[in-house]
This record gives sequence, C-alpha cells and structure tokens, in this order.
Amino acid sequence: MRRTDDTTAKHRAILEAAARLICKQGYEGTSIQEIADACGLTKAGLYHHIESKEQLLVEIMNYGMDVFEERVLSEVEHIPDPVERLKACMARNIKLVTRGWSKEVTIILHEHDTLTGKSQAHINGRKKRYVRFLESSFSEAVERQLIRPVDPTVAAFAFLGMVLWIYKWFKPGGKRTDDEVAAGMVDLLFTGLQRVPPS
Amino acid sequence: MRRTDDTTAKHRAILEAAARLICKQGYEGTSIQEIADACGLTKAGLYHHIESKEQLLVEIMNYGMDVFEERVLSEVEHIPDPVERLKACMARNIKLVTRGWSKEVTIILHEHDTLTGKSQAHINGRKKRYVRFLESSFSEAVERQLIRPVDPTVAAFAFLGMVLWIYKWFKPGGKRTDDEVAAGMVDLLFTGLQRVPPS
Repeated sequence: MRRTDDTTAKHRAILEAAARLICKQGYEGTSIQEIADACGLTKAGLYHHIESKEQLLVEIMNYGMDVFEERVLSEVEHIPDPVERLKACMARNIKLVTRGWSKEVTIILHEHDTLTGKSQAHINGRKKRYVRFLESSFSEAVERQLIRPVDPTVAAFAFLGMVLWIYKWFKPGGKRTDDEVAAGMVDLLFTGLQRVPPS
Repeated sequence: MRRTDDTTAKHRAILEAAARLICKQGYEGTSIQEIADACGLTKAGLYHHIESKEQLLVEIMNYGMDVFEERVLSEVEHIPDPVERLKACMARNIKLVTRGWSKEVTIILHEHDTLTGKSQAHINGRKKRYVRFLESSFSEAVERQLIRPVDPTVAAFAFLGMVLWIYKWFKPGGKRTDDEVAAGMVDLLFTGLQRVPPS
C-alpha cells in the first residue's frame, strides 16, 4: 500500500497514539472513542483511517515490523560475513528499540497476543522470518568455523532476549548511551565472558 | 504470612487461575465474577481469599517473587565463586520459567505495569534486588579476574533478557529439553561465541 508522505505521517501518529493508550489501559479497556480523542479526531474521522479496533492493533504490529525490516533487516541481510551481519543486526535492532519508535510499539509487538486467525498468523510469520534469519546466520557462522559450534536456535533466542529485553530497563538520558549498550551487548555475546589467557 | 499447606495450595490455585484469565482477557477485561467462576467459587467465596482485583494482581506478583526467591535466589546466593553462582542462577531461573510455574505467572510478573503506588514500589523493589544481586556478582567476578572486564549492568540485563525471553518461545516437549536450553544459554554467555584457537 503506497501512501503520500503526509498521509503516512498522519497514519503513523494515529498508530503511535493508539499504541500508547492501549499500553496504558489495556486493549480491552480502551475504546475507539478514547483513541479518537487522543488523536484529536472525531470517531468518524478515526474510522476514515482504520476499520476496527482489531484492525488498528494489526496495523500497529505491521507498522512495527515494517520499520524493523526497513531499518534493521534490509540494512544487514546482504552482509557477506555472517558474524559481521549478526553484530550489525544486533546493534541496529537495539537502537531501533531505544530510539526508532516508541516503547509502546515494542510492547504491542511483543506482549500482545490479542490477535486471532489470519492476522495473528501473518504477524507471527513476519516475526518467524526474523528468527529464521538469525538461526541461518548462526548456522553459517558455525559451518564456516567463524564461531564455536553452538545450537543456532538457542543462539538466536539468546540474541533476541538480550536485544528485546532492553525496552524493559533502558532509560534514555541515563548513565549509558544506547550506543554503549549496543557495543556492550555485541561484545558480551560474540566475545563472551572468558578471560583472554595472557599471551 | 504463614499458611497451612492446604490453604497455600488453594490460594496458589486461585492465583494461577486468575493469572491465566488475566493473561487471556487483559486485567481490565476480567471481572471478579469470571475469576470466581474459574476457581469454582462464588464471588463471596473468592472475597474470602482476596480483598480486591488489584490486590489479586499484587498477590500473583508476590507469589511469583516468593517462588523465585525460594527456588532460585536462596539456592545460589551463598555460592562463593561468583561465576559458579551466576551459572547456577541462570540454569535455575530458566527452569523456573519453563516448569516452576505457569507461563502466565511470568507474563503477569513481567508484562503488567498495572499496579500503582506502594504495591508497584514493593514489587519493583523485589525485582531490583535481583538485578543488584546479578550486578554485584558480575562485579565480583571482574574484580577477582575470573571474567573479562565487562559492564556489570549490561551483563546483568543480558543475563535477564536471555533467561526471561524463554517463555516467549520455549515449548515443553519440543526439540530441546529445558535442561539443554539452560546448558546452551550458560555456555553462550560464559564461554561466548569465539572460536577456541587450536592448541
């Protein structure tokens, strides 16, 4: 679906406002009227942009996955060295979580199992694509003997846990910048905690 | 608060049933009547056990933290070697997530920011105590030169992300046992991905 920049910005603002409200009050506890109010629209005006409350949730998740694929996946998937690919991916994904969108978009994407049927299958499919990309990158790194032989699935979910848990604790403007957190996480996973033996 | 075993089991069953319902329908979307029905109690019967819906949420979280402290923290905090302490802690915490309680207890503990005021401060304090324990164990390991010098806070949250994200993807009875996942995660964080140079 192609939109003009203006429509996209307006639409994005609606999705961000709805995400904030749904996170605060819960999906069941949020009415379309309240979302319209938060967007400065009438209910009819909001329905011009969205079909239903469930459709809005689908759109927030698809918006999250669109931004993720644009800023993270498509920027790194063609890096030939699988270790460099994974490191760049981790750093970019961390910065997406800390500054690419609102914390509420991360929450909706990862904490809301409200969708059912086709919508749920579609979003889960997009998430699974990312897991498969991580697994195959770890596999490739093991096969090319660039890293120790590890279970690619466990490594993929360790990677995801390290990256995605960040929205729970990271405070912008705190002691550490997100660049420092990203560098620290990449170093932890790829170099590990083992002391380098004195040479 | 001391309870007889019978009361504890009954109380625990109520908390688990309420957790399942709240996760499915949302906190706002779940009534006390529905929770009573799920427990096979009348509303009055349920109020014999709990004061209010918010108090129930507090109790689910405190129950989660009680079980965590009993099965994980108190079992490992006296291990003298900080690396062994952290490894044992990670393996135990993973198995708490995979089999110690329902997935819904993990979700309520980590996804629900519904509490306010004193209750929220109390639960957050209990969670923070765990973060401090991890940070000080990583610090101690760095000071004693048992691991590379890393930022203890970043290491603590990497640890937590790896452990707690597991409820999102681990399926009991799947390809990997939780023992394998626990061993894999400990190995990943503490040995890292670097290839061991041929000796």
